[in-house]
Amino acid sequence: MTAEIITIGDEILIGQIVDTNSAWIGEKFNECNIEIVQIRSVSDKKEAIADALSDVKADVIVITGGLGPTKDDITKKALAEFFGVGFIRNQAALENVRKIFLTSNRALLEVNEQQADVPANCSVLVNVNGTAPGMWFEHLGKVYVSLPGVPFEMKYLVEEEVLPRLLKRLDQSAIYHHTILTAGIGESLLAQTIAPIEDNLPEGIKLAYLPKLGQVRLRLSGYGRDAALLKSEIEQVIEQIKKRIPEHVFAVEDIPLELALLRLMTQRGLTLSVAESCTGGYLSHLLTRHDGASRVFRGAAVSYSNSLKETMLGVSANTLAVYGAVSEEVVMEMLAGALNNHGSDYVIAITGIAGPGGGSEEKPVGTIWIAAGSRHKTLATKLLLTGRRLQNIERSAINAIVLLFKLLHSV
Amino acid sequence: MTAEIITIGDEILIGQIVDTNSAWIGEKFNECNIEIVQIRSVSDKKEAIADALSDVKADVIVITGGLGPTKDDITKKALAEFFGVGFIRNQAALENVRKIFLTSNRALLEVNEQQADVPANCSVLVNVNGTAPGMWFEHLGKVYVSLPGVPFEMKYLVEEEVLPRLLKRLDQSAIYHHTILTAGIGESLLAQTIAPIEDNLPEGIKLAYLPKLGQVRLRLSGYGRDAALLKSEIEQVIEQIKKRIPEHVFAVEDIPLELALLRLMTQRGLTLSVAESCTGGYLSHLLTRHDGASRVFRGAAVSYSNSLKETMLGVSANTLAVYGAVSEEVVMEMLAGALNNHGSDYVIAITGIAGPGGGSEEKPVGTIWIAAGSRHKTLATKLLLTGRRLQNIERSAINAIVLLFKLLHSV
Repeated sequence: MTAEIITIGDEILIGQIVDTNSAWIGEKFNECNIEIVQIRSVSDKKEAIADALSDVKADVIVITGGLGPTKDDITKKALAEFFGVGFIRNQAALENVRKIFLTSNRALLEVNEQQADVPANCSVLVNVNGTAPGMWFEHLGKVYVSLPGVPFEMKYLVEEEVLPRLLKRLDQSAIYHHTILTAGIGESLLAQTIAPIEDNLPEGIKLAYLPKLGQVRLRLSGYGRDAALLKSEIEQVIEQIKKRIPEHVFAVEDIPLELALLRLMTQRGLTLSVAESCTGGYLSHLLTRHDGASRVFRGAAVSYSNSLKETMLGVSANTLAVYGAVSEEVVMEMLAGALNNHGSDYVIAITGIAGPGGGSEEKPVGTIWIAAGSRHKTLATKLLLTGRRLQNIERSAINAIVLLFKLLHSV
Repeated sequence: MTAEIITIGDEILIGQIVDTNSAWIGEKFNECNIEIVQIRSVSDKKEAIADALSDVKADVIVITGGLGPTKDDITKKALAEFFGVGFIRNQAALENVRKIFLTSNRALLEVNEQQADVPANCSVLVNVNGTAPGMWFEHLGKVYVSLPGVPFEMKYLVEEEVLPRLLKRLDQSAIYHHTILTAGIGESLLAQTIAPIEDNLPEGIKLAYLPKLGQVRLRLSGYGRDAALLKSEIEQVIEQIKKRIPEHVFAVEDIPLELALLRLMTQRGLTLSVAESCTGGYLSHLLTRHDGASRVFRGAAVSYSNSLKETMLGVSANTLAVYGAVSEEVVMEMLAGALNNHGSDYVIAITGIAGPGGGSEEKPVGTIWIAAGSRHKTLATKLLLTGRRLQNIERSAINAIVLLFKLLHSV
């Protein structure tokens, strides 16, 4: 079964709101083996809606938005015209509207009662969270579902009304997805390295590369008749990839890299602190945006100025003067200082030039030293990044996490 | 001029990522008076792309995604087939690829060089942030632009290449936008307070409210034939608003709140450091993501654990035991400790419970203490936030910045 989504409303087209509804519907439908073939956002003009309705591709068309009581909401009219039917007032929808106004103690206007007027060929999906009813149409072998655009009203109707009805109709073709998080290897080299696996993927299984800042997510998708077979085939491919690039696989689920680190360190009962300069708190924020970070993360010295590198981390003025703040010597003293002062098992330290200012011929913008270590073992490496300020900050943090992973995998 | 957006990639259809690119493009184009008539997301299958390309409605078609070096990225092939042309290797794109690989010290593979192969009828838009070139096509009176899906690469190309070219083609009716950044006042109260100004806006000038996390941006837009008149009328409205709510206007341009703070402190030659607990580095990151932050920002103690509150900031064990880490007493000791240790003119301190864990009846999730001060004057206040973890972190940081502004305006 295939589906498509049509979202109606100028606020999406002018970028006033981000269309998160479609992503949510896509995820839910995908979990139920319904393949979304297209998402389309159109203006709340009658011609634009009519145009979208007359050019549908899928078995199921989910339409969201444009169901409010005001004049600019015209989805219902466009639907009635498209199906060539008139309006009738639906009793269940009317009672729902009255009930909502009664409990909220607001005056019921005629425009509110009109929300219970629906195209004559629809079945109403009662919207207990709002006054605009959901509507279900069957027309020339296709299903059209019209839902309010307010996210919690839409979500309730999809979960309680739409999906149960669609699942009843579904023939049992299966879809299965799995994501592998890799890092520390570029997309092209990764593709070349796993080419023998990719070239021999079982029938019906696809591999997609989703690169982002030093990480590449590999998404395996399978479509077919036999869910158990698909699952087992995809799991075999995952094992092959893990065997091929063991040092680059950080998770076999779709989670951020730093969360994979927090989970590994939580499992091992290890603590972490951070000494960061050019990343200016970003690495600490990456870690602490996750619930449960406090089981691992002790804190950080954000030693942005040289004097704070000395007072917070005990970096010597002489080392700073001789080697400069962006040097292997300084990053190692930052690491040692944090190990001494913060009482954590492991430390990550970063110092560099994020840009756009501060570069020199010897140390251009993008020169970054990162280090990771415990009292027993340390690793340090230099990065030469080429991005703009924010990308350099993000890449430095990600590379530093990869460095700590490397160390943790080696002990 | 009308435009439409086609985003390519299964990851959007299955809800793995939310399509924020389209909202961003919609906003930018709208600001330039280019009307987006449709946004469409399709699968990365050649037929789906061909189908979308053969059914376009607007003058300009912006296509994002599907330009990577791997096999699942087939936008380029689909475009060449659609236009009926072959491929040529573009010298500028090739040099860009080589330069990126050279500076990042990675091995250049044949698949990377192939990224410089483009359909023969395109003009290349050089992508300095990545290896996939942007492509500009003119075909049967329409413009087709193909851009990478990686947000920062796409944004750079839209701002530096695509919009300047499109604006040249636009008829020259004037558009003028100006943004006022307000904070510390809710949207409804703000609207009520400036209603007399809003009700008397000059002909052709519109006022929009863009609320976000304790801030409200007021966007004044004017459309008309006379650019100078528009500009002067909008400037008069800005003066009226500044006079009406002087304590809430933090900038008269569209910049983030923390950048307004950095600029004010730079002007005054003041320095800042931070003592943050529940925000975990986020406030420091907010400040240091801006170029030039080092003129103001000295550093931060991210004292996530209680023991680091003691060792990094000198908070007394007794205060922690008696009042708890989330208390006025502790936030004031954090502030005093940072003033003593970090050598900055001003300090912001934050401690609280971001959630979802850690709340109690007495101190529920969302209880946050913030403080701002110098050696001469301090302010502290308690927040009771109701969001989820990340919102609570962001709101705490924004409120703390507003608190420091209040202090700076009073001296």
